[in-house]
Amino acid sequence: MITVNARSTSGPAEPFTPTTIVRRDPGPHDVLIDIAYAGICHSDVEHARSLRGKTTYPLVPGHEIAGIVSAVGSQVTKFAVGDRAGVGNMVDSCRVCPNCQAGLEQYCSGARVLTYNAIGRDGQRTQGGYSEKIVVDEAFAVRIPNCIPLQNAAPLFCAGITMYSPLRHWNAGPGKRVGIIGFGGLGHVGVQISKALGAHTTVLDLSTAKREDGLRLGADDYRVNTDAGTFADLAASFDLIVSTVPANVDLDAYLGLLALDGTLVTLAIPAKPLSLSAVSLLNNRRSIAGTRSGGLAETQEMIDFCARHRIGAEVEVIGADRIDEAYTRLLAGDVRFRFVIDIGTMGRLPKDRHHAA
Amino acid sequence: MITVNARSTSGPAEPFTPTTIVRRDPGPHDVLIDIAYAGICHSDVEHARSLRGKTTYPLVPGHEIAGIVSAVGSQVTKFAVGDRAGVGNMVDSCRVCPNCQAGLEQYCSGARVLTYNAIGRDGQRTQGGYSEKIVVDEAFAVRIPNCIPLQNAAPLFCAGITMYSPLRHWNAGPGKRVGIIGFGGLGHVGVQISKALGAHTTVLDLSTAKREDGLRLGADDYRVNTDAGTFADLAASFDLIVSTVPANVDLDAYLGLLALDGTLVTLAIPAKPLSLSAVSLLNNRRSIAGTRSGGLAETQEMIDFCARHRIGAEVEVIGADRIDEAYTRLLAGDVRFRFVIDIGTMGRLPKDRHHAA
Repeated sequence: MITVNARSTSGPAEPFTPTTIVRRDPGPHDVLIDIAYAGICHSDVEHARSLRGKTTYPLVPGHEIAGIVSAVGSQVTKFAVGDRAGVGNMVDSCRVCPNCQAGLEQYCSGARVLTYNAIGRDGQRTQGGYSEKIVVDEAFAVRIPNCIPLQNAAPLFCAGITMYSPLRHWNAGPGKRVGIIGFGGLGHVGVQISKALGAHTTVLDLSTAKREDGLRLGADDYRVNTDAGTFADLAASFDLIVSTVPANVDLDAYLGLLALDGTLVTLAIPAKPLSLSAVSLLNNRRSIAGTRSGGLAETQEMIDFCARHRIGAEVEVIGADRIDEAYTRLLAGDVRFRFVIDIGTMGRLPKDRHHAA
Repeated sequence: MITVNARSTSGPAEPFTPTTIVRRDPGPHDVLIDIAYAGICHSDVEHARSLRGKTTYPLVPGHEIAGIVSAVGSQVTKFAVGDRAGVGNMVDSCRVCPNCQAGLEQYCSGARVLTYNAIGRDGQRTQGGYSEKIVVDEAFAVRIPNCIPLQNAAPLFCAGITMYSPLRHWNAGPGKRVGIIGFGGLGHVGVQISKALGAHTTVLDLSTAKREDGLRLGADDYRVNTDAGTFADLAASFDLIVSTVPANVDLDAYLGLLALDGTLVTLAIPAKPLSLSAVSLLNNRRSIAGTRSGGLAETQEMIDFCARHRIGAEVEVIGADRIDEAYTRLLAGDVRFRFVIDIGTMGRLPKDRHHAA
C-alpha cells in the first residue's frame, strides 16, 4: 500500500482539505504514476457537489491526469520508469464486451470503472487525480509525447478526447463546416482539433469576450449566440455542431443551423431533459446525438495528433489549496481556459503556503 | 381548363362534400392523370382539421395518388397515354438548389410545392387526389410497374416512400436489426420493406391485435410496447428504430433499445416537443433523427423495389362518400391498413348511392 497526499471534500457544500489516501501496490500489469498536474473539469464540480446525486464522500476528484511513471509491474510492456503518462476518466472496463473488444471502452456494457467515485475490480473505491500518485493498469494509461508540456497535456485526457472523438466520428475535415457551442475548457481545445482536421470552424459563444483567443487558436469565425442575427446568417450552414455547454440551450435554434444530414452532438448532461421540435429534425434530415469521451486507443491517437499539430490546453496553474476558489471561478466562466492543479504543491499544508507568502 | 369532380371540406369541423375543381390544361412537360385511387394518409386528417394551423379552405386533400395517364404535353418523354402513374406529396420544387440537384426534392431549400394546401408556380392553390384528375409535371410523376394493383400502389407514394427512404438511408439490411414503432399505414409497409432489404425486423405496437398480420408480412418479432418486459428484453439490441406514430412517445425508453451507434428516426410531428434525456444519447453514442418522404428518383426506386418484392399496401377500398367515416375510423386505429378512395365513385352524387342501395 502506498500512502499519498491528496485533496478531498467531505460533502456537497464542504471545502477541499488536505488528506491522505492509499493506492494499491502495483500489480503485474500496473503502472505507478507520479502525478504532475491534474485538470479541473466541470464534471469534477458536478460530482464534488453531488449535482448528479450519486457522490460518495470523502471524494478525491480528478480525471485529467498527467505525470511520470515511477514504477512498473512485472508484465508491463508499454511503459518504463521515467516515461510520461496520462490517465482520463476511466481506469478499467470489462474488456470482454463487444464494445471493449472494439476499443470503445467508454461504451463498455459490462463494468466500466470511472477514475473516481466508482468501485474498482478490487472492490475499493476509486479516487482521482487531486493526489500525488495513482496506480492504474497500463491498458488504461496513455503515453504522452515529449513535446507537450504536462500541464497542457493533462486536460486533453478529458476535454481533448471528448472533443476529438465526436469530431472524428462525424467526419470533421476538409470541406466540412463545424460549429462549436461554448468556448471554454472543451471548446478551446475543440477549435484547435477541428481546425487541425481541416474543417471550417466557427465558435458560437455567449459574448465576444474571448473572440481574439478564438481566432488565435484557429477559429474561422466567432459568433455571439445571444444575437438573433447569428441564427439568420448561419441558417442551414453547418455539417456538425458540437455543444460543449452543460446548460440547456435552445436546440431548435441550433438545429436550424444544420445543413442537409447535419448532426448536433451534445457532450454534456444538462439539468433538464432536452426539448426540441420534430420539425427541426425532419427539415434537412437532421440528427441530434451524444458521445462520451473516447476509448483508450483513440485517446492515444488524440494525444499523438495534438502533439503533431502543437495542440494543447491553455491553462492556469493553481496550487492545491486553491481548488475551492477555482471551482467558484470556473462556474463564473472566469478561466482561460482550464485550471490545472500543480500536484507538486500538494505536500505543502496550508500553513506552509502562508509561510511562503 | 379541365373541370373535375372532387371531394372537399370547407372547415376543420365540416364534412366532405361533392364539388368540382379545375385543373390547368397540360403544358409541354405536363401529364394528365385519370386518378383511380387515392389513399387516406394521417396527415390528410391533420390538414383537413387544421391541426397544424395552416389550412386554407375549401381543401381537397390526397397525396397518395395512382392512376392512368390520359394526355401528355408535347415535350413529355417519360410517359405515354395509357401508362400507369403515381403522384406523392410534392408536385414541384425549385429544381435548382443543391438538394433538388441531388435528387432530394423533399429538402428543397427553395419553393417546394406540396400536392395540396400549397401555392403552385402558376400562383394557383394546389388541390389533391380526392378528385378525378390531376395535372402534374412529368418530373413529379412516377411510373408504376404493371404488377402492382393501383389500389395497393397508391399508398406507397406517401407511406411507402416515407418508410423506404429512412430504411435505405440508415442502411437497413443484412445483419442489421430494425424496430418499427406502430403497425398501421406506414408500419405495415415498413415491415415489408425492411424485411425485403434483409434486416431482422421487429414490430413494437400497442397491442397484439395485429400480430398475425405482422408475422405474415414478414416481421421476425412482434412486441407490445406497453409491456415493460419488452424494454428489458430488447435493451440495446436495435441498430435502427423508425417511429411511425404521430403521438409523443417515451423516447428515453425507445432510445434504450438502441445498440452502439443506433439511430431512432421519427417520421411524424407530435403535438408536443420531443423530450429526452441527454444520457439516453450519450449511452451507446445514439442519435435521434427525422426524415420527410423522399425525392422523385428515390420514389421511383421505391416503387420498383416494391414491385420486385411483391410489396404493396393492404387496403380497404371505400367510396368517395365515406371519407368522413374513414377519418373517424382511422383516428380510432380501425383500419387494416390503409383506406383508399375508389375515385370511380366520385362522379356519383350521394343520392345516386342511395338509389343504388
